[in-house]
Amino acid sequence: MKIIKTEKLTDYNHLNMFKIMYLDRDGSQRSWFIASRDSEPKCVTKRFSVPDGVIIVPFHTERNKLVVVKEFRVAVGDYKYGFPAGLIDEGETAAEAAKRELKEETGLILKRILKISPPVFSSTGMTDETTSIVYVECGGELSDMGNSSSEDIQSFFASKEDVAALCADSNLKFDAKAWLILSSFSENGRI
Amino acid sequence: MKIIKTEKLTDYNHLNMFKIMYLDRDGSQRSWFIASRDSEPKCVTKRFSVPDGVIIVPFHTERNKLVVVKEFRVAVGDYKYGFPAGLIDEGETAAEAAKRELKEETGLILKRILKISPPVFSSTGMTDETTSIVYVECGGELSDMGNSSSEDIQSFFASKEDVAALCADSNLKFDAKAWLILSSFSENGRI
Repeated sequence: MKIIKTEKLTDYNHLNMFKIMYLDRDGSQRSWFIASRDSEPKCVTKRFSVPDGVIIVPFHTERNKLVVVKEFRVAVGDYKYGFPAGLIDEGETAAEAAKRELKEETGLILKRILKISPPVFSSTGMTDETTSIVYVECGGELSDMGNSSSEDIQSFFASKEDVAALCADSNLKFDAKAWLILSSFSENGRI
Repeated sequence: MKIIKTEKLTDYNHLNMFKIMYLDRDGSQRSWFIASRDSEPKCVTKRFSVPDGVIIVPFHTERNKLVVVKEFRVAVGDYKYGFPAGLIDEGETAAEAAKRELKEETGLILKRILKISPPVFSSTGMTDETTSIVYVECGGELSDMGNSSSEDIQSFFASKEDVAALCADSNLKFDAKAWLILSSFSENGRI
Protein backbone atom coordinates (compact mmCIF):
# COMPACT_ATOMS: atom_id res chain seq x y z
CA MET A 1 0.00 0.00 0.00
CA LYS A 2 1.45 3.36 -1.03
CA ILE A 3 0.17 6.94 -1.11
CA ILE A 4 0.62 8.48 -4.59
CA LYS A 5 -0.88 11.97 -4.33
CA THR A 6 -3.64 13.99 -2.71
CA GLU A 7 -6.17 16.48 -4.05
CA LYS A 8 -7.79 19.22 -1.94
CA LEU A 9 -11.51 19.14 -2.74
CA THR A 10 -12.79 22.11 -0.69
CA ASP A 11 -11.43 25.44 0.49
CA TYR A 12 -12.78 26.32 3.95
CA ASN A 13 -11.03 27.73 7.00
CA HIS A 14 -10.99 24.99 9.62
CA LEU A 15 -11.86 21.73 7.86
CA ASN A 16 -11.50 20.42 4.32
CA MET A 17 -12.02 17.29 2.27
CA PHE A 18 -9.21 15.58 0.43
CA LYS A 19 -9.07 12.78 -2.11
CA ILE A 20 -6.08 10.54 -1.54
CA MET A 21 -4.87 8.35 -4.39
CA TYR A 22 -3.02 5.19 -3.36
CA LEU A 23 -1.83 1.88 -4.73
CA ASP A 24 -3.47 -1.17 -3.19
CA ARG A 25 -1.74 -4.50 -2.52
CA ASP A 26 -2.30 -5.60 -6.13
CA GLY A 27 -0.75 -2.38 -7.49
CA SER A 28 -4.12 -0.98 -8.62
CA GLN A 29 -4.76 2.74 -8.14
CA ARG A 30 -7.60 3.54 -5.75
CA SER A 31 -8.87 6.60 -3.93
CA TRP A 32 -10.02 7.35 -0.37
CA PHE A 33 -11.79 10.45 0.93
CA ILE A 34 -10.94 12.07 4.24
CA ALA A 35 -11.60 15.28 6.17
CA SER A 36 -8.60 17.12 7.59
CA ARG A 37 -7.92 20.17 9.73
CA ASP A 38 -4.56 20.60 7.97
CA SER A 39 -3.83 22.41 4.69
CA GLU A 40 -2.26 19.17 3.47
CA PRO A 41 -3.09 15.73 4.93
CA LYS A 42 -0.72 14.09 7.43
CA CYS A 43 -0.16 11.08 5.12
CA VAL A 44 1.87 13.55 2.99
CA THR A 45 3.30 16.01 5.54
CA LYS A 46 4.08 13.31 8.17
CA ARG A 47 3.23 15.92 10.82
CA PHE A 48 2.60 13.36 13.54
CA SER A 49 4.58 14.77 16.47
CA VAL A 50 2.19 17.61 17.40
CA PRO A 51 -1.53 16.74 17.73
CA ASP A 52 -4.33 18.90 16.32
CA GLY A 53 -5.95 19.22 19.72
CA VAL A 54 -5.99 18.20 23.36
CA ILE A 55 -8.55 16.60 25.64
CA ILE A 56 -7.96 17.36 29.30
CA VAL A 57 -8.97 14.85 31.99
CA PRO A 58 -9.01 17.02 35.15
CA PHE A 59 -9.04 15.57 38.66
CA HIS A 60 -9.75 18.16 41.37
CA THR A 61 -7.51 17.10 44.25
CA GLU A 62 -9.15 19.17 47.02
CA ARG A 63 -12.66 17.99 46.19
CA ASN A 64 -11.44 14.50 45.24
CA LYS A 65 -13.69 14.59 42.17
CA LEU A 66 -13.44 14.47 38.41
CA VAL A 67 -14.38 17.55 36.35
CA VAL A 68 -16.92 16.75 33.61
CA VAL A 69 -18.10 19.11 30.87
CA LYS A 70 -21.57 19.29 29.33
CA GLU A 71 -21.28 21.25 26.10
CA PHE A 72 -23.61 22.11 23.24
CA ARG A 73 -22.05 20.81 20.02
CA VAL A 74 -23.38 21.90 16.64
CA ALA A 75 -22.43 18.53 15.06
CA VAL A 76 -24.62 16.77 17.63
CA GLY A 77 -27.39 19.41 17.72
CA ASP A 78 -27.52 18.73 21.44
CA TYR A 79 -25.41 18.65 24.59
CA LYS A 80 -22.51 16.22 24.68
CA TYR A 81 -20.78 14.99 27.85
CA GLY A 82 -17.03 14.91 27.87
CA PHE A 83 -13.99 16.81 29.05
CA PRO A 84 -12.50 20.25 28.39
CA ALA A 85 -10.89 20.18 24.95
CA GLY A 86 -9.61 22.41 22.20
CA LEU A 87 -7.27 22.91 19.29
CA ILE A 88 -3.59 23.61 19.87
CA ASP A 89 -2.55 27.12 18.87
CA GLU A 90 0.42 27.72 16.56
CA GLY A 91 3.67 27.16 18.47
CA GLU A 92 1.92 25.83 21.58
CA THR A 93 2.75 22.48 23.21
CA ALA A 94 0.04 19.99 24.24
CA ALA A 95 0.75 20.83 27.91
CA GLU A 96 0.40 24.58 27.29
CA ALA A 97 -2.83 24.10 25.36
CA ALA A 98 -4.20 21.91 28.17
CA LYS A 99 -3.47 24.61 30.76
CA ARG A 100 -5.06 27.34 28.60
CA GLU A 101 -8.17 25.39 27.58
CA LEU A 102 -8.80 24.14 31.14
CA LYS A 103 -8.76 27.73 32.39
CA GLU A 104 -10.88 29.08 29.50
CA GLU A 105 -13.54 26.37 29.61
CA THR A 106 -13.82 25.68 33.35
CA GLY A 107 -11.97 28.48 35.21
CA LEU A 108 -9.81 25.85 36.92
CA ILE A 109 -6.04 25.96 37.38
CA LEU A 110 -3.81 23.16 36.11
CA LYS A 111 -1.61 22.11 39.04
CA ARG A 112 0.20 19.02 37.79
CA ILE A 113 0.31 16.94 34.61
CA LEU A 114 0.00 13.24 35.40
CA LYS A 115 0.26 11.74 31.90
CA ILE A 116 0.12 12.86 28.24
CA SER A 117 -0.88 10.36 25.56
CA PRO A 118 0.89 10.35 22.21
CA PRO A 119 -1.12 12.03 19.41
CA VAL A 120 -3.85 9.44 18.79
CA PHE A 121 -6.22 9.30 15.80
CA SER A 122 -9.92 10.22 16.20
CA SER A 123 -11.21 7.97 13.41
CA THR A 124 -8.77 6.79 10.74
CA GLY A 125 -11.47 5.72 8.31
CA MET A 126 -12.49 9.34 7.70
CA THR A 127 -9.93 11.80 9.10
CA ASP A 128 -6.27 12.33 9.97
CA GLU A 129 -7.22 14.37 13.08
CA THR A 130 -5.10 13.62 16.14
CA THR A 131 -5.51 14.49 19.79
CA SER A 132 -3.39 14.09 22.89
CA ILE A 133 -5.19 13.11 26.07
CA VAL A 134 -3.73 15.11 28.97
CA TYR A 135 -4.43 13.77 32.48
CA VAL A 136 -4.05 16.51 35.10
CA GLU A 137 -4.59 17.48 38.71
CA CYS A 138 -6.34 20.81 39.07
CA GLY A 139 -7.52 23.32 41.68
CA GLY A 140 -9.61 26.48 42.02
CA GLU A 141 -13.29 27.20 41.48
CA LEU A 142 -15.53 26.52 38.47
CA SER A 143 -16.40 29.53 36.29
CA ASP A 144 -17.92 29.99 32.83
CA MET A 145 -16.51 33.53 32.48
CA GLY A 146 -14.15 32.35 29.69
CA ASN A 147 -17.03 31.14 27.46
CA SER A 148 -17.77 33.13 24.30
CA SER A 149 -21.33 33.61 22.98
CA SER A 150 -20.80 30.72 20.53
CA GLU A 151 -19.88 28.39 23.42
CA ASP A 152 -22.36 26.79 25.82
CA ILE A 153 -20.21 24.87 28.29
CA GLN A 154 -21.26 23.78 31.77
CA SER A 155 -18.64 22.15 34.00
CA PHE A 156 -19.31 20.19 37.17
CA PHE A 157 -17.56 18.02 39.74
CA ALA A 158 -18.40 14.31 39.66
CA SER A 159 -17.70 11.50 42.12
CA LYS A 160 -17.31 7.85 41.10
CA GLU A 161 -21.04 7.37 41.80
CA ASP A 162 -22.04 10.50 39.86
CA VAL A 163 -20.05 9.28 36.86
CA ALA A 164 -21.60 5.81 37.07
CA ALA A 165 -25.06 7.45 36.98
CA LEU A 166 -24.09 9.53 33.91
CA CYS A 167 -22.77 6.47 32.05
CA ALA A 168 -25.97 4.54 32.85
CA ASP A 169 -28.23 7.28 31.43
CA SER A 170 -29.14 6.19 27.90
CA ASN A 171 -30.50 9.65 27.06
CA LEU A 172 -27.06 11.29 27.25
CA LYS A 173 -24.57 11.68 24.40
CA PHE A 174 -20.87 11.13 24.95
CA ASP A 175 -17.58 11.74 23.23
CA ALA A 176 -16.03 8.31 22.56
CA LYS A 177 -12.78 8.97 24.45
CA ALA A 178 -14.67 10.52 27.36
CA TRP A 179 -17.05 7.53 27.54
CA LEU A 180 -14.09 5.14 27.90
CA ILE A 181 -12.41 7.29 30.57
CA LEU A 182 -15.69 7.87 32.46
CA SER A 183 -16.59 4.15 32.33
CA SER A 184 -13.20 3.25 33.75
CA PHE A 185 -13.49 5.94 36.47
CA SER A 186 -16.97 4.68 37.41
CA GLU A 187 -15.47 1.23 38.03
CA ASN A 188 -12.25 2.02 39.88
CA GLY A 189 -12.46 5.71 40.90
CA ARG A 190 -9.14 6.50 39.21
CA ILE A 191 -8.23 8.37 36.02
CA MET B 1 -28.10 27.49 20.82
CA LYS B 2 -30.32 26.25 18.00
CA ILE B 3 -29.71 24.58 14.63
CA ILE B 4 -31.43 26.53 11.81
CA LYS B 5 -30.51 24.67 8.62
CA THR B 6 -27.78 22.67 6.93
CA GLU B 7 -26.21 22.84 3.49
CA LYS B 8 -24.51 19.88 1.76
CA LEU B 9 -21.25 21.18 0.31
CA THR B 10 -19.91 18.10 -1.49
CA ASP B 11 -21.38 15.07 -3.24
CA TYR B 12 -19.23 11.99 -2.69
CA ASN B 13 -20.19 8.42 -1.85
CA HIS B 14 -19.00 7.76 1.69
CA LEU B 15 -18.17 11.12 3.26
CA ASN B 16 -19.36 14.68 2.72
CA MET B 17 -18.95 18.15 4.14
CA PHE B 18 -21.87 20.14 5.49
CA LYS B 19 -22.29 23.75 6.60
CA ILE B 20 -24.57 24.00 9.62
CA MET B 21 -26.20 27.35 10.39
CA TYR B 22 -27.11 27.91 14.03
CA LEU B 23 -28.09 30.66 16.45
CA ASP B 24 -25.58 31.33 19.21
CA ARG B 25 -26.45 32.31 22.80
CA ASP B 26 -26.83 35.96 21.77
CA GLY B 27 -29.23 35.07 18.92
CA SER B 28 -26.62 35.79 16.23
CA GLN B 29 -26.48 33.48 13.22
CA ARG B 30 -23.23 31.53 12.87
CA SER B 31 -22.00 28.57 10.85
CA TRP B 32 -19.99 25.44 11.63
CA PHE B 33 -18.45 22.96 9.18
CA ILE B 34 -18.53 19.21 9.72
CA ALA B 35 -17.85 15.99 7.81
CA SER B 36 -20.56 13.33 7.89
CA ARG B 37 -21.07 9.79 6.62
CA ASP B 38 -24.81 10.44 6.41
CA SER B 39 -26.78 12.04 3.54
CA GLU B 40 -28.07 14.55 6.09
CA PRO B 41 -26.30 15.35 9.39
CA LYS B 42 -27.52 13.80 12.66
CA CYS B 43 -28.23 17.26 14.17
CA VAL B 44 -31.17 17.32 11.71
CA THR B 45 -32.15 13.65 11.35
CA LYS B 46 -31.67 12.84 15.08
CA ARG B 47 -30.52 9.38 13.98
CA PHE B 48 -28.68 8.65 17.21
CA SER B 49 -29.90 5.14 18.05
CA VAL B 50 -27.84 3.22 15.46
CA PRO B 51 -24.11 4.02 15.22
CA ASP B 52 -22.25 4.47 11.93
CA GLY B 53 -19.76 1.77 12.85
CA VAL B 54 -18.47 -0.66 15.42
CA ILE B 55 -15.14 -1.25 17.07
CA ILE B 56 -14.71 -4.77 18.40
CA VAL B 57 -12.55 -5.45 21.47
CA PRO B 58 -11.94 -9.21 21.20
CA PHE B 59 -10.62 -11.30 24.10
CA HIS B 60 -9.60 -14.83 23.07
CA THR B 61 -10.67 -16.97 26.02
CA GLU B 62 -8.63 -20.13 25.16
CA ARG B 63 -5.39 -18.21 24.69
CA ASN B 64 -6.25 -15.73 27.46
CA LYS B 65 -5.05 -12.89 25.21
CA LEU B 66 -6.40 -9.77 23.56
CA VAL B 67 -6.61 -9.59 19.76
CA VAL B 68 -4.92 -6.50 18.33
CA VAL B 69 -5.01 -5.33 14.72
CA LYS B 70 -2.24 -3.59 12.79
CA GLU B 71 -3.80 -2.05 9.70
CA PHE B 72 -2.60 0.22 6.90
CA ARG B 73 -4.82 3.31 6.87
CA VAL B 74 -4.75 5.71 3.95
CA ALA B 75 -5.56 8.70 6.23
CA VAL B 76 -2.45 7.90 8.27
CA GLY B 77 -0.24 6.85 5.32
CA ASP B 78 1.08 4.18 7.64
CA TYR B 79 0.05 1.29 9.86
CA LYS B 80 -2.25 2.06 12.77
CA TYR B 81 -2.72 -0.16 15.83
CA GLY B 82 -6.23 -0.75 17.03
CA PHE B 83 -9.03 -3.28 16.93
CA PRO B 84 -11.19 -4.84 14.23
CA ALA B 85 -13.73 -2.25 13.11
CA GLY B 86 -16.10 -1.39 10.33
CA LEU B 87 -19.27 0.32 9.21
CA ILE B 88 -22.66 -1.14 10.01
CA ASP B 89 -24.53 -2.40 6.94
CA GLU B 90 -28.10 -1.32 6.24
CA GLY B 91 -30.50 -3.10 8.59
CA GLU B 92 -27.71 -4.65 10.66
CA THR B 93 -27.44 -4.31 14.45
CA ALA B 94 -24.18 -3.35 16.17
CA ALA B 95 -23.90 -6.94 17.48
CA GLU B 96 -24.38 -8.43 13.99
CA ALA B 97 -21.83 -6.03 12.48
CA ALA B 98 -19.34 -6.92 15.24
CA LYS B 99 -19.70 -10.65 14.50
CA ARG B 100 -19.30 -10.09 10.73
CA GLU B 101 -16.36 -7.67 10.93
CA LEU B 102 -14.50 -9.82 13.48
CA LYS B 103 -14.77 -12.82 11.14
CA GLU B 104 -13.85 -10.81 8.00
CA GLU B 105 -10.86 -8.99 9.48
CA THR B 106 -9.39 -11.65 11.79
CA GLY B 107 -11.02 -15.00 10.94
CA LEU B 108 -12.12 -15.34 14.58
CA ILE B 109 -15.55 -16.40 15.83
CA LEU B 110 -17.55 -14.19 18.19
CA LYS B 111 -18.57 -16.42 21.12
CA ARG B 112 -20.15 -14.00 23.59
CA ILE B 113 -20.84 -10.27 23.79
CA LEU B 114 -19.71 -8.84 27.13
CA LYS B 115 -20.75 -5.21 26.73
CA ILE B 116 -21.88 -2.79 23.99
CA SER B 117 -21.33 0.95 24.46
CA PRO B 118 -23.98 3.43 23.36
CA PRO B 119 -23.21 5.14 20.03
CA VAL B 120 -20.40 7.52 21.05
CA PHE B 121 -19.05 10.44 19.01
CA SER B 122 -15.60 10.22 17.34
CA SER B 123 -14.84 13.96 17.46
CA THR B 124 -17.76 16.39 17.85
CA GLY B 125 -15.75 19.43 16.74
CA MET B 126 -15.58 18.11 13.18
CA THR B 127 -17.97 15.19 12.60
CA ASP B 128 -21.23 13.58 13.68
CA GLU B 129 -19.75 10.09 13.21
CA THR B 130 -20.71 7.62 15.96
CA THR B 131 -19.37 4.21 16.89
CA SER B 132 -20.38 1.53 19.35
CA ILE B 133 -17.58 -0.26 21.16
CA VAL B 134 -18.42 -3.98 21.35
CA TYR B 135 -16.49 -6.01 23.94
CA VAL B 136 -16.53 -9.72 23.08
CA GLU B 137 -15.11 -13.12 23.88
CA CYS B 138 -13.91 -14.94 20.80
CA GLY B 139 -12.45 -18.25 19.64
CA GLY B 140 -10.90 -19.90 16.58
CA GLU B 141 -7.72 -19.26 14.64
CA LEU B 142 -6.40 -16.05 13.08
CA SER B 143 -6.71 -15.74 9.30
CA ASP B 144 -6.38 -12.89 6.80
CA MET B 145 -8.39 -14.76 4.14
CA GLY B 146 -11.25 -12.22 4.45
CA ASN B 147 -9.02 -9.25 3.50
CA SER B 148 -9.61 -7.61 0.12
CA SER B 149 -6.74 -6.19 -1.99
CA SER B 150 -7.48 -2.70 -0.62
CA GLU B 151 -7.09 -3.97 2.95
CA ASP B 152 -3.78 -4.65 4.69
CA ILE B 153 -4.76 -6.01 8.10
CA GLN B 154 -2.55 -8.10 10.37
CA SER B 155 -4.09 -9.47 13.56
CA PHE B 156 -2.19 -10.90 16.52
CA PHE B 157 -2.71 -12.13 20.07
CA ALA B 158 -1.32 -9.90 22.83
CA SER B 159 -0.78 -10.51 26.54
CA LYS B 160 -0.86 -7.75 29.15
CA GLU B 161 2.93 -7.46 28.79
CA ASP B 162 2.78 -7.41 24.97
CA VAL B 163 0.22 -4.59 25.09
CA ALA B 164 2.32 -2.62 27.60
CA ALA B 165 5.26 -2.86 25.17
CA LEU B 166 3.10 -1.65 22.27
CA CYS B 167 1.81 1.34 24.27
CA ALA B 168 5.37 2.26 25.30
CA ASP B 169 6.63 2.32 21.69
CA SER B 170 6.62 5.97 20.60
CA ASN B 171 7.07 5.00 16.94
CA LEU B 172 3.63 3.39 16.71
CA LYS B 173 0.39 5.11 15.75
CA PHE B 174 -2.85 4.35 17.57
CA ASP B 175 -6.56 4.87 17.22
CA ALA B 176 -7.65 7.04 20.19
CA LYS B 177 -10.25 4.62 21.52
CA ALA B 178 -7.88 1.68 21.09
CA TRP B 179 -5.09 3.53 22.93
CA LEU B 180 -7.35 4.05 25.95
CA ILE B 181 -8.51 0.41 25.98
CA LEU B 182 -4.96 -0.92 25.44
CA SER B 183 -3.53 1.37 28.16
CA SER B 184 -6.14 0.12 30.61
CA PHE B 185 -5.51 -3.53 29.62
CA SER B 186 -1.75 -3.03 30.07
CA GLU B 187 -2.42 -1.93 33.65
CA ASN B 188 -5.03 -4.40 34.86
CA GLY B 189 -5.12 -7.23 32.26
CA ARG B 190 -8.88 -6.81 31.78
CA ILE B 191 -10.99 -5.35 28.99
